[in-house]
Amino acid sequence: MLYITRRERFSAAHRLFNPNLSQDQNLKEYGKCANEFFHGHNYKIFVTVKGQIKPDVGYVMDMKKLSQIIKTQIIELVDHKNLNIDVDFLKNINPSTENLLIQFWGRLAPEIEKCNCKLHKLKLIETENNYGEYYGE
Amino acid sequence: MLYITRRERFSAAHRLFNPNLSQDQNLKEYGKCANEFFHGHNYKIFVTVKGQIKPDVGYVMDMKKLSQIIKTQIIELVDHKNLNIDVDFLKNINPSTENLLIQFWGRLAPEIEKCNCKLHKLKLIETENNYGEYYGE
Amino acid sequence: MLYITRRERFSAAHRLFNPNLSQDQNLKEYGKCANEFFHGHNYKIFVTVKGQIKPDVGYVMDMKKLSQIIKTQIIELVDHKNLNIDVDFLKNINPSTENLLIQFWGRLAPEIEKCNCKLHKLKLIETENNYGEYYGE
Amino acid sequence: MLYITRRERFSAAHRLFNPNLSQDQNLKEYGKCANEFFHGHNYKIFVTVKGQIKPDVGYVMDMKKLSQIIKTQIIELVDHKNLNIDVDFLKNINPSTENLLIQFWGRLAPEIEKCNCKLHKLKLIETENNYGEYYGE
Amino acid sequence: MLYITRRERFSAAHRLFNPNLSQDQNLKEYGKCANEFFHGHNYKIFVTVKGQIKPDVGYVMDMKKLSQIIKTQIIELVDHKNLNIDVDFLKNINPSTENLLIQFWGRLAPEIEKCNCKLHKLKLIETENNYGEYYGE
Amino acid sequence: MLYITRRERFSAAHRLFNPNLSQDQNLKEYGKCANEFFHGHNYKIFVTVKGQIKPDVGYVMDMKKLSQIIKTQIIELVDHKNLNIDVDFLKNINPSTENLLIQFWGRLAPEIEKCNCKLHKLKLIETENNYGEYYGE
Repeated sequence: MLYITRRERFSAAHRLFNPNLSQDQNLKEYGKCANEFFHGHNYKIFVTVKGQIKPDVGYVMDMKKLSQIIKTQIIELVDHKNLNIDVDFLKNINPSTENLLIQFWGRLAPEIEKCNCKLHKLKLIETENNYGEYYGE
Repeated sequence: MLYITRRERFSAAHRLFNPNLSQDQNLKEYGKCANEFFHGHNYKIFVTVKGQIKPDVGYVMDMKKLSQIIKTQIIELVDHKNLNIDVDFLKNINPSTENLLIQFWGRLAPEIEKCNCKLHKLKLIETENNYGEYYGE
Repeated sequence: MLYITRRERFSAAHRLFNPNLSQDQNLKEYGKCANEFFHGHNYKIFVTVKGQIKPDVGYVMDMKKLSQIIKTQIIELVDHKNLNIDVDFLKNINPSTENLLIQFWGRLAPEIEKCNCKLHKLKLIETENNYGEYYGE
Repeated sequence: MLYITRRERFSAAHRLFNPNLSQDQNLKEYGKCANEFFHGHNYKIFVTVKGQIKPDVGYVMDMKKLSQIIKTQIIELVDHKNLNIDVDFLKNINPSTENLLIQFWGRLAPEIEKCNCKLHKLKLIETENNYGEYYGE
Repeated sequence: MLYITRRERFSAAHRLFNPNLSQDQNLKEYGKCANEFFHGHNYKIFVTVKGQIKPDVGYVMDMKKLSQIIKTQIIELVDHKNLNIDVDFLKNINPSTENLLIQFWGRLAPEIEKCNCKLHKLKLIETENNYGEYYGE
Repeated sequence: MLYITRRERFSAAHRLFNPNLSQDQNLKEYGKCANEFFHGHNYKIFVTVKGQIKPDVGYVMDMKKLSQIIKTQIIELVDHKNLNIDVDFLKNINPSTENLLIQFWGRLAPEIEKCNCKLHKLKLIETENNYGEYYGE
């Protein structure tokens, strides 16, 4: 069993915001992260796939294929977008690192399984000091 | 003559937008960077000060003081903000890297001169692939 | 179950030194790392917490709270200090990466549990070539 | 149980190439990675060892010893070499990240066991976007 | 006057080799860098352009255009190639960092001038310890 | 004229301390940087040499030679040392980044001139937020 990881990047605006709370309550909970007109990040996503080496080709999964899946399923939909407004699959989702990980997992795992591999881990880096990881359960 | 540099960071939303053009014209000029609901970045600013070593203390300028100036003049006003909407000193400014550098220079240079040093260079990193530099003229 | 990680940094002097051995024996064992008058590092600590997403707020644990715990329990006590001399909770401890990890764990885990989360992993980077990790057991 | 990691680096030429296929078939499978006259990378290898702290010395394994093993078993044989041609232990191996990890594991694990420690993980970074990991099984 | 910089990357094989010398003499001069079957690097190129801000658009030069020039003039020709064999504009050139910088300059400067900007500096990073810079004269 | 840069690293203990002032005055001036028992850093030094390409070899200066000069003149004397106590050429020098740059320059420039090259710039990185640069005058 080997693990391979592909990194992709996107830049997006967002704010932490729970629509069931008032703006004052959101500010109390999230501080500057709830700023009404948003802030933003250069996000880095690391997608780790696990599988056996395919003996004829010598790799677990074609990195070009993995990159293409991440771009089609995630990057093209979130890059240079507002995560609270612009992204259909994030509608009504508070775009915290944790919630993004869960939504991204749901979009990547089935596509990777079609290639006879298994999504093992997602890591989403929000700033050089903060990141989250998810193993799908 | 020695040069010392202090790095500070901020995360902000912005979009490239010329208010004299229509949204369609802005999209044509700036592409995804003009997205109506903004995108965002983790910005890194490197502030380079030049001066003589002060013999009694052994440095050009107190790094704690330099950090405090950058935070007061820049970071506290732009971090977790929308550069098109939230920032008084950027009103009516298209927040490109280049325009940000010029505005930041105007706010930092006088404060650094009060410390008998001279602002030499600003470097503003927008993404790991793009940055701008300004020497004040 | 999600994992979130907060990075904090500190700069400290230390040397590897076993007080039960002579300075010559220490030099033989640790080489330049036993230098009598110390050397030092810019340490980076990555604190990984695991937990469920709290549905009302959308995160596992407030990153501001996690940062505050790390600062109060660790950074304020070790930053710009001598790990062999200045730090009460390291008295009589040989400040290797491994021993630091165990001591840091003991100070962080109970505070994180008070927030209904669980400390999952500590990673301590000593140089760009050397780091250690600890899972608490 | 603690985990310590040592990073080492090497620069090498390689190409992905299955000798059972024609050059055209290789190009179809691997694209530019099969270029007849090779390309190359600055590889980074992270070697993670697990073990108990040895109480008298305060560490799991002497980092100088670990570095020496990696250099003798791997770096001196692959640095500034062509992985398809120059390296005896890679003869007839398609030098993908995955295959390199398995070959490196076979050379490192026994040497680390001689030091009463256990090789836990190898991570091989090929580019800033691509890396692989192996746990020995 | 402002300076903007775009980073691009390529991975290539090369060796230092002076065809007027024997292989033995080359090995004596360049050591392992002259290895007959090549080695390779992940190169990073930083292209710095200087110019005035164009007031209507707010930037010195469109980063997308700059990226496209670098890709067309350099990256597509050297990425996943052998710099001693595969690249027409490097024929009979010893592919040291210094010589690469001069050849790259000659291909980039005229294209950037067509955009009414001026190439100011090229920086070519060969490894994390070695890089070269060129200002065109 | 081309510029080449070699990076080397060292880890050292130090404190900012002016022996003409009392410990209280030093603490007032330097804060935690004056801690009596020192703190420490992983320093990175970037040595930039300028010169013409030597046509027969294709480089400005042999990087192996440059590395050897930096190691002999600087790294072997300061690595895993206390900059306030252990280093002869820093005796009675307050080891600020600025003062280190001047002392390092004095030791490197003559050795580099013996190779018919010219030391152009020294950059000394103390932390990821602080660095200094010196051009020799």
